[in-house]
Amino acid sequence: MEPSANAAPAAPIRFETNPSRYKHWKLTFDGPVARLAMDVSEEHPLRPGYALKLNSYDLGVDIELADIVQRMRFEHPEVKTVVVTGGQPKVFCAGANIYMLGSSTHSFKVNFCKFTNETRLYLEEACAESGQHYLAALNGVASGGGYELALACEEILLSDDGNSAVSFPETPLLAVLPGTGGLTRLVDKRKVRRDLADVFCTLAEGVRGKRAQDWRLVDRSVPRSRFDQVVLERAQALAAATPTKQGPAVKLPPLEPKRYDEGNRVGSDYRYVSLSINRQNRLAEITMLAPDQEPPTTVEALRQAGASLWSFQAFRELDDALLDLRFNYPEIGLALLRTRGDAKLVVAHDAALHALSQGPSTAASDALRGDWFACEVLLHMRRVLKRLDLTARSLFALVDPGSCFAGSLFELCLAADRAYMLDGGDGETAFIGLSPLNFGPLTMSNGLTRLQTRFLYAPSRVGEIESLDGFLDAATALEEGLVTFTPDEMDWEDEVRLAVEERVSLSPDALTGMEASLRFAGPETVETKIFARLSAWQNWIFQRPNAVGERGALTMYGRPERPEFDWRRT
Amino acid sequence: MEPSANAAPAAPIRFETNPSRYKHWKLTFDGPVARLAMDVSEEHPLRPGYALKLNSYDLGVDIELADIVQRMRFEHPEVKTVVVTGGQPKVFCAGANIYMLGSSTHSFKVNFCKFTNETRLYLEEACAESGQHYLAALNGVASGGGYELALACEEILLSDDGNSAVSFPETPLLAVLPGTGGLTRLVDKRKVRRDLADVFCTLAEGVRGKRAQDWRLVDRSVPRSRFDQVVLERAQALAAATPTKQGPAVKLPPLEPKRYDEGNRVGSDYRYVSLSINRQNRLAEITMLAPDQEPPTTVEALRQAGASLWSFQAFRELDDALLDLRFNYPEIGLALLRTRGDAKLVVAHDAALHALSQGPSTAASDALRGDWFACEVLLHMRRVLKRLDLTARSLFALVDPGSCFAGSLFELCLAADRAYMLDGGDGETAFIGLSPLNFGPLTMSNGLTRLQTRFLYAPSRVGEIESLDGFLDAATALEEGLVTFTPDEMDWEDEVRLAVEERVSLSPDALTGMEASLRFAGPETVETKIFARLSAWQNWIFQRPNAVGERGALTMYGRPERPEFDWRRT
Repeated sequence: MEPSANAAPAAPIRFETNPSRYKHWKLTFDGPVARLAMDVSEEHPLRPGYALKLNSYDLGVDIELADIVQRMRFEHPEVKTVVVTGGQPKVFCAGANIYMLGSSTHSFKVNFCKFTNETRLYLEEACAESGQHYLAALNGVASGGGYELALACEEILLSDDGNSAVSFPETPLLAVLPGTGGLTRLVDKRKVRRDLADVFCTLAEGVRGKRAQDWRLVDRSVPRSRFDQVVLERAQALAAATPTKQGPAVKLPPLEPKRYDEGNRVGSDYRYVSLSINRQNRLAEITMLAPDQEPPTTVEALRQAGASLWSFQAFRELDDALLDLRFNYPEIGLALLRTRGDAKLVVAHDAALHALSQGPSTAASDALRGDWFACEVLLHMRRVLKRLDLTARSLFALVDPGSCFAGSLFELCLAADRAYMLDGGDGETAFIGLSPLNFGPLTMSNGLTRLQTRFLYAPSRVGEIESLDGFLDAATALEEGLVTFTPDEMDWEDEVRLAVEERVSLSPDALTGMEASLRFAGPETVETKIFARLSAWQNWIFQRPNAVGERGALTMYGRPERPEFDWRRT
Repeated sequence: MEPSANAAPAAPIRFETNPSRYKHWKLTFDGPVARLAMDVSEEHPLRPGYALKLNSYDLGVDIELADIVQRMRFEHPEVKTVVVTGGQPKVFCAGANIYMLGSSTHSFKVNFCKFTNETRLYLEEACAESGQHYLAALNGVASGGGYELALACEEILLSDDGNSAVSFPETPLLAVLPGTGGLTRLVDKRKVRRDLADVFCTLAEGVRGKRAQDWRLVDRSVPRSRFDQVVLERAQALAAATPTKQGPAVKLPPLEPKRYDEGNRVGSDYRYVSLSINRQNRLAEITMLAPDQEPPTTVEALRQAGASLWSFQAFRELDDALLDLRFNYPEIGLALLRTRGDAKLVVAHDAALHALSQGPSTAASDALRGDWFACEVLLHMRRVLKRLDLTARSLFALVDPGSCFAGSLFELCLAADRAYMLDGGDGETAFIGLSPLNFGPLTMSNGLTRLQTRFLYAPSRVGEIESLDGFLDAATALEEGLVTFTPDEMDWEDEVRLAVEERVSLSPDALTGMEASLRFAGPETVETKIFARLSAWQNWIFQRPNAVGERGALTMYGRPERPEFDWRRT
């Protein structure tokens, strides 16, 4: 039943899109309030073989949503509330398409869920940190992933019309779990009482009206006759409480990488990023280039740079390369992270961006924050680095002469499972460097910076490292605990080669579980719970015979017979 | 490769044992210091088919360890340090026996790991709360579960003898994860730096000597010539810093339940607990009886009651019944929780025990705490209720007239996924009741009480409920959010029957994942990380073809050929 092992996907999946190409969402603007209506086109699935009925979604629908959430922040700074609603009669959204899931490989399903999870977390981040509030206006049934999309919004209004309902039919109908953070958001974000959550999650038909409100499943149940009016009022109220952003919008042009596929030489070259795939060795190399000029230091210059700003463009490119790696090269087990260029320029860009994001005052209150675009670029960097943390591939950073692992690029080194740094020799030597971005803005999913997570055993180390000046050579970096190994020139090549060969020989499943467990020490957040706890349960259940076996519930969905279960509880 | 579906285990597994029956551990006492040497008998596996070579363990070995940790608290209050060491040459412990794992069902493996995890958490609890410090003295190789046992100890001393090492060979050799909290304890308890943890977890041969200490894998590496001396000094130092417990030890007699198996009527009757199994309906009923006399209210009377104290005996019986249910009846999906007896006596016992545990002073400092035995009984109750939370079966509490869900027994109701309470009628009515034990001592794995977890959405509710007086009828309990549904006499039977029938028809895998996600909202702890995150990853990996397939690493272990992997990363 699992599509053939080690098969490459039929056609590569691309993640760049733009409003002129949207097929599934209708976006309209009215001053500070935007309306985002889900209106999935049945006959435009990402690949042939299923129809997207009842506003169900596949990866293609979610790629558009991710693009919308991203562009909203940069291209529509005037928008303060986004009303997310259904564009089809009776149904808000039926969730992920079951036939698509049933015909996908396990690794695709897992990557699909991870991407949709990330999109929903980005939407929550926009609510929490970008002054763009997402308001779910459920004018129909929101089931499974449909309700999970609503749960990611800041508020949920449900039409009380005898039809509209919220539901998680996954457990009763499909023998799987809601795959996009639903269970965690239910009890940890909305803090629904656990016994009510239990009842709700086993009721295939869901909960409507007043009961949905009483159980905290939605914020308000509103009679149909007043629904549009209440939604508008609430959208305007959210907008009215949100400060206005100064300065023009920033357009996001396409990245236009040069992609090549010449047998064993496969990859993509962007302006500042290259992804190079070695299929035979199951190895990828991701190289990031430093900026090649001084950074803009005024808001005006920053706005003039716009999307071509190194800090923005380089990380947009990295993001695209990571998604390419995740979806289009599943058999690649290890990514080597490299950098090239002038580390001083990286630190200069980081420092300038940080200063512009802080504004003239040093007070930390929101009202005195600096330029919104500078803030958005930092948040974007943070999202991309989280995407790296959450990429289920081994990551080794290689710090050699000519590299520029400084500041924001040093975060790549900290995100890696290991860092090898060449110690010595006669000519150019390798350095790492620090910038203000290593000490605050670029937190991981656990809410800590990568340095804080690294030094959980001695939190004062972070302050000591912040007080270090300039750039650190290999001996100092090792002493300070910032890199893993520092072979000299004699050993470098052999040591790295052996480590790489050994890594790609290990079981990819065990490595995924091991890395997921070791990367996220420290506090838990809704984010880490979703990825580290819920996703793990879901991975397990998604391949159990009770779900995907010949008589499993996912396989049998839509057929007249009942599924058959192995009743043993584990 | 999976032993046949739905097969009942060959012979029931029993969890009661005592020192006269130990086969695998040697326990010696020297005043406040006890020495616990692991010396596993190869030819005494729990079931035939494998030999317990190299101090490897199976469930039988761990049942003895659990018994030792339990008896140490009650029967040896004079012991302040337990030195855990190896009783065989060269090897401290090689971890769980691979051939045992390879020949076990998935559900047995998961339950085995859960039990061993619980035992290690109990050992940590003894260190943290009972003034019994476990000190690992590694005089040989501690690999896999062997190192995990050491990680559960408060301190780890490693002999620097050119042979002794700590290691996690699971990922490189077996394509699975350390199954007993190892990864979490590595980065979250010992706070090992993540890149060093990464290297360590892929090094099959492990790490020795000074490097093990430098990487924080052990607390001290000690030259062999001085090892015994340093261990003794450290054990004595831990003991010297620990207050002495007053009053005699408490012996743990066997529980001696009456077990019966008459076709479809199967179960066990204890003094205060009965477990009744209905195989046909995949249903269990667990009934707990209230005490039948007033509680002891002085330390002397408490000690006279000893192990026959209701609060202790009833929860020891519940513990045994839960393990029986987990291991011997895997096909049972739902347990109905019932109580019978005088709720006032439950509250009286709770209040008396709580008062004796607090001591004469109301200050909360440890030195002024009350009787150690009272404290130990509370900790035991807490462990048993955690065991209930972590039992992968649906739990419904049935609150009907004649029941006594009050205080410690009301925790059963709060632990249940749902509670049904009969509202009305003419004769005797159902009540629930509260005691001091609902508001502090009986925390869940997440560090919160069950009431705090229930009311995460309105923390002040807990204080309001604490101020309620006496016993609450169904209408009040529903109003206060303490039960789920309150059918009247007309509806009770049908509503409960339908809910039960529906529940046992759902996929057991999906229910396990759903319940694990909904039961533990709120903060995360090492405990919840181990159960909710690490176990889930492990569940997944433990059934992947890369581990357990025909050419998987676990299957191929010990054979000359290399395993074969599906390289796709998920």
